[in-house]
This record gives sequence, structure tokens and C-alpha cells, in this order.
Amino acid sequence: TNKSKSLTPDNLVDCFAEIEHAAKRLKNVAYKTPVMTSQSVNERCNAKVFMKCENLQRIGAFKFRGAYNAVSQLNEAQRLRGVITVSSGNHGQAIARVCQMLGIKATIVMPDDVPEIKRNAVAAFGANIVIFDRSKQKRDEMVDAIIAQENQVNIPAYEHPHIIAGQGTAGLELINEIKDLNTVLIPCGGGGLLAGSVIAIKSIAPDCRVIGVEPDLADDGVRSFKSGHIQTITNPQTIADGTRTESIGVLNFEIIKRYVDDLVSVSEHAIEEATAMLFYRGKIVVEPSGALGVAALLEKKVENPGKAGVIISGGNVDGAIFSEILRSVNVRSKT
Amino acid sequence: TNKSKSLTPDNLVDCFAEIEHAAKRLKNVAYKTPVMTSQSVNERCNAKVFMKCENLQRIGAFKFRGAYNAVSQLNEAQRLRGVITVSSGNHGQAIARVCQMLGIKATIVMPDDVPEIKRNAVAAFGANIVIFDRSKQKRDEMVDAIIAQENQVNIPAYEHPHIIAGQGTAGLELINEIKDLNTVLIPCGGGGLLAGSVIAIKSIAPDCRVIGVEPDLADDGVRSFKSGHIQTITNPQTIADGTRTESIGVLNFEIIKRYVDDLVSVSEHAIEEATAMLFYRGKIVVEPSGALGVAALLEKKVENPGKAGVIISGGNVDGAIFSEILRSVNVRSKT
Repeated sequence: TNKSKSLTPDNLVDCFAEIEHAAKRLKNVAYKTPVMTSQSVNERCNAKVFMKCENLQRIGAFKFRGAYNAVSQLNEAQRLRGVITVSSGNHGQAIARVCQMLGIKATIVMPDDVPEIKRNAVAAFGANIVIFDRSKQKRDEMVDAIIAQENQVNIPAYEHPHIIAGQGTAGLELINEIKDLNTVLIPCGGGGLLAGSVIAIKSIAPDCRVIGVEPDLADDGVRSFKSGHIQTITNPQTIADGTRTESIGVLNFEIIKRYVDDLVSVSEHAIEEATAMLFYRGKIVVEPSGALGVAALLEKKVENPGKAGVIISGGNVDGAIFSEILRSVNVRSKT
Repeated sequence: TNKSKSLTPDNLVDCFAEIEHAAKRLKNVAYKTPVMTSQSVNERCNAKVFMKCENLQRIGAFKFRGAYNAVSQLNEAQRLRGVITVSSGNHGQAIARVCQMLGIKATIVMPDDVPEIKRNAVAAFGANIVIFDRSKQKRDEMVDAIIAQENQVNIPAYEHPHIIAGQGTAGLELINEIKDLNTVLIPCGGGGLLAGSVIAIKSIAPDCRVIGVEPDLADDGVRSFKSGHIQTITNPQTIADGTRTESIGVLNFEIIKRYVDDLVSVSEHAIEEATAMLFYRGKIVVEPSGALGVAALLEKKVENPGKAGVIISGGNVDGAIFSEILRSVNVRSKT
């Protein structure tokens, strides 16, 4: 199996070693994305904000890190079998791109309501796309049926130690570059980026607070963190589509429970405000999920953020949706 | 007067010394903006593109450089008189911001059709705004009348040696950071950025081609360059609002004529395509004028661009205009 023996949540030193291994694999393959600052973002957020720009990562999101870390560890026999995953979003693009780079056959399973732009992005990387009818088929049964016939290796979007370790390299680069951060804010969907990054951050800067951020409309993580047990949410209607996962992964949650300081949630308005502010002031294109950390600062969900790292998780956003965000924010600012 | 004795177009060494002085003044004041690359931009442009991101400069445009270089050289008596300029765009914002930093009174003269967002940006920096009625008053007479009463120092947007020298530091940083560039593409409105940058680039890398880029709809610079005499254009309707100047400045043109290799112009469609591509692929917010260099590459207006530096001049763009660009490009891509 691909399960890493050493990503055992109660052993931070061993977990961190996995992330350092991932960082070696990703060297000169993933981009070392820039950490940006903006005086007007600082003023609006009342903090010194250091934005780790994973929107500038390959395929426009941190997902490239985990995908490469996982796929590149497959042995020759596994590579010949090909890779399969279910994702209509950035993970699907990342798996397709990595498989293209490594000469491996990729199958990406998507629901039939996937936007054309996302389907085209995956197709451009040469992956095989399988569409399923949400109303008639269960996603997992669909995938199991394909695997039964074609025997691919399944690499899920977040519940996988190599995915977690790969995503953690984003947090590792941030904490190595900016010293003495008081707080780091990290978007949380399935919890891969948050779990991986908290391992790296707490290993290097144990006193730095690490806070996960979700939309109010998809607050299963906040409820899970408070109750100590994984809670679910069904088809949340948040604009932050990267966080529409049903729940945090089991392994991810074990890590998050132990090491993350808090999870907070933010309003849809704050997500839109943050996305628009990063457009007008930061001059960067950020997808709504990627703006969650800045949204938490705008909405004052974090006490004394101080020197605050924020992982901008991605920048893949449809032009029409982005335009609608700018329009909504503009209308609200005038009323 | 503020005229620099040493910015004499026929003496490249002396001109370059002025730019190096400007660089010293701007050190730790202006941002040393990043040079970004994007694999998919390279593929679309069929070149290795190095984007000098002045959209990430203070006030969102290179204009901060020239404004600071000019205002910071005023003597005590001049500072007490205050500064005046006519600009509804980035130069007005830049003068307002610099005067705020240096504790100098700024008066920014704008036409009455200036978008509210631009007026507010200048007001936020504490400048005094004077509105004139385009249909009833001539801009220059208006300014002369104010100066006759209030005696401010007039710092125009591009026709001024200290402005030219300041803008040239953008080209200087680019050519110092990226070695062996074959070509550098620079937007041209009044010609301050182009004139200043060509001095820096030709001084350090004499074999690097420097090409100015204009919209087809505002091609006075191309016509001036071909004829050897300054040509004008009246109220051009290009979306690239930073290049709607009536003509290149006299001093600017003397420099451009001597040192620039060529000027080319691009279609409105190409400007929109480039702006949208930098949104979707580059993940950066660029105003239409800032996308001119990339537009020239997309439209194949430059033979063998090779390693091509592009100055992205600014990122200040209205959300509604930006949304309309994304929509137009999307519609065209489907027809």
C-alpha cells in the first residue's frame, strides 16, 4: 500500500521527517512560491500579513505539491497501472498534470455538473475524464467499479499520508522564510493543507499559533474540532468551492486535533470582501477558498494576529464568478 | 528650475548617472518589485517571458518611482509652496502618495468625468482635488490660473527629467536581475517609462532590443518614431487608459528616437486577451495598459523575442471594466 508507516499523528518528529522528505522530492519540481506583503492589506486587516502565494504554484494551487509527492512515490508496477482520482477541482488538475509529467496514465472522475473550464483544464493535461451522474450514481461506487476493471491506483484528494506530507511543504516554506510569525491561518476543506502545514510549523516554531479557516456555511471542521469527533456537512452552498468537502479526513483530523490551536469560520461576505481586496489592493488573483485566511482577519475572527502568515491556497476561479464577486462587493460598499 | 542639467539625450553615460542617482533615492522607499515567470504565458507567447511586476509597486503602478524622484528633490522653499499636477490616473495617485509621505501639500487637477474610484484613491492620500469641466475649460489654463494664485510647483506626468529618471529605475532593476535578455517590451504613453528604461537597459546591455508598445488606437508614438517628428492623437478610445496621452513628451522623444529600437502597436483584442491571460494563467491583476507588452507577444508583433523582459506597468483597474474584459474574451473564445 501507499500508507506511510511514519505519518503517525502522535509522533511529531517522525511526521516532520516525512514533510522534509516531501520537500526534497518537490525541489525544482514545485515552485517555491513567493511570500507577498501589501501595506494596504495590513491596514485593512490590522496585522502584518505575509501571504504565501500558492495561487502562483503550478496548476494554480497547492494541490500540485501533494499530488507530486504521492504519484512520484509509486513504484514501477503501480505506475504501469495508472492513477485514478475523483475531483472536479484543483486536485484533479494536479493529478492530471503530475501524471503528464511522469508519463503515467491518469483517470479523473468528475460529476456531470462540473464547469466546462475545469473539465478543459484537466483534458489539456491529457488525462482520461470519466463523468458520472450525481443523481444516479454514488461517486465511490463509480470509482470502485472502474478500478475493478482497470486496476488503477486511487490517490484521493486529502486522506492520504503522502498528500498530507506534500501539502505540508507549503507551510514549511512559509515558516522557514518568515521568522517569528505569531499566527498562521490556513484554509481547511478536507484538511490536507492544514494537517501537513501544522506539522511543519509546530516543528520549527512551536509557539506559533496555527488556525484553520472554513466558511460558516461549511463549518464541519469547526464543529469537529470542538466536539473532538469528525462531523459532516452535506452539499454546502459556499462560494469557497475548495472547502465543499463532506468532512475532514480521518488521518488529517487526528493531526489537526493534536496540533492545530483553533478552527474558525467566516461569512460569505467576508470571503468576497477578501477576494476583492486582494484584487484591488494586493493585485493578485485568488479563488474564494484561497482568501479564507484574509477573510478571517478582516472579520476579526483571530485575537491579536500580530505577524500573521496566511496561506493563499489557490487562484483558479471562473471569470464570471470572479466578476460577480467584484460586483457584489461594490454594491455592498455603496449601501 | 527642476530641469536636470545632465539628462541630455545625446550623452548616454550622463543620462544613466541620473538613473543611478534616482535608484539611490528610491532605495527602501519604492518596492523592488518581483520579476515573475509563468510557463503557460511562455507557451502562449512563444517566448521566455520575464514580467517586471510594477502592478505590485506602491500605488499599484511604476508612477510612484518618478513622482518620488521628482518631489524628493524639491528644496525647502519649493516644498513649502506645495505641488500641483494634472492627472486622473496613476501619476495623480503617485504625487498624492509621495506628498503625503513627505508632508507636502498636493493639488491634483482632474477632469469632471474622472471615475469615482480614482478620485477616492487620490482623496485617501490627503490631496486637494480640483475638478475642471472638460467642455468649458482648457486643462493647462486651469492649472496656470491655480498656480498664479497659489504658486505650487508643477510636476507633470512624463515630460520632466526627474520623472523620466525615476521611471527608468524599473528598467534598471529588470536588466540587473535578468541577464542576457534579448528584448524588453515597454508600454508607451507619454514615454517616461520607455525613455527612462531604455537609458538603463542600453547602458547595461547594449545589445538588448528595446521596443515600445502602444495600442493601435493610440499609435501616435509609432507614427512619431517612423517620421522622426512628434505626432499627436486626439482623445483615443483605447481601453488602455494609461496611453491616452496626446503625444510623447519632447525630451522623452529625443531619448526614444536615439535609443529605442522600435515601436509597435497592438489591437484592442490583443490587449484584452493579454489582460485575461494574465488573470487566468499568471494570476496577477494587470490594467490594460500594463498588458501591452504581453499583447505584442501574443499578436506576434516582435520577431524572435527570445528571452523577453516585459514591464507590467500597473494594476489599477476598475472592477466593472475588468469584468467586461473577461466577459468579452470568453465570448470571443467561443465564437
